Amino acid sequence: MSVIPESHRDLLERALFGHFATLRPDGSPQVNPVWFRWDGERIWFTTETRRYKYRNVAKDARAALSVNDPDQPYRYLEVRGTVDRIVDDPSTDGFFELADRYGMTFERPIPDAPYRVLLGLRPERVSFQ
Amino acid sequence: MSVIPESHRDLLERALFGHFATLRPDGSPQVNPVWFRWDGERIWFTTETRRYKYRNVAKDARAALSVNDPDQPYRYLEVRGTVDRIVDDPSTDGFFELADRYGMTFERPIPDAPYRVLLGLRPERVSFQ
Repeated sequence: MSVIPESHRDLLERALFGHFATLRPDGSPQVNPVWFRWDGERIWFTTETRRYKYRNVAKDARAALSVNDPDQPYRYLEVRGTVDRIVDDPSTDGFFELADRYGMTFERPIPDAPYRVLLGLRPERVSFQ
Repeated sequence: MSVIPESHRDLLERALFGHFATLRPDGSPQVNPVWFRWDGERIWFTTETRRYKYRNVAKDARAALSVNDPDQPYRYLEVRGTVDRIVDDPSTDGFFELADRYGMTFERPIPDAPYRVLLGLRPERVSFQ
């Protein structure tokens, strides 16, 4: 059983931009646009170990994602949860799965391949409209 | 002198949806789509005292806003700062200023008028692309 409401699942299934909130080392919030992918259990993001987004969730795993519907902007889904998976992605297969989903092409190998990681957010609570 | 880069100021001037991150009472992040307005000094939001968004910033004023450009989604601005103004808005003039900006019409009085407040975020740091 997922906490994601059936009525708003399309917002995770469509290749929309999400806005991913994490906690900086001092506990203040950070929020940035991100690619994401939902596998029915976790929402996955791609980042690299040299970025704050990674350092933030490695220190405090609590995070949240906001996605609204560009066709009906008052329709939105917020997912709050825990980044309980951080997976090394030096092959960049995870990166390319996301890039493909968003219609972006890059030449392999990408320069930051050794630093790429995938973050898996497990949803715990939602709000939506 | 504002910390908002000239190159990305249009993202605050256009009536785009922002994604506003605040801290819940337990310190975990919350993020939701919001209307906003930039007056050159603060970014203003409308909410009401019965909502978490208000309770969050009343307890911990640290907050962040992410806005991306719908025409070029990789172009974005993140603003981090402090909500150093919370202004009662029972006249709802502040609410209607924002509603007008986003092309929405409501009949006066709106039912939650006694609870309406404006939150003013003072930018301290930015990230952008």
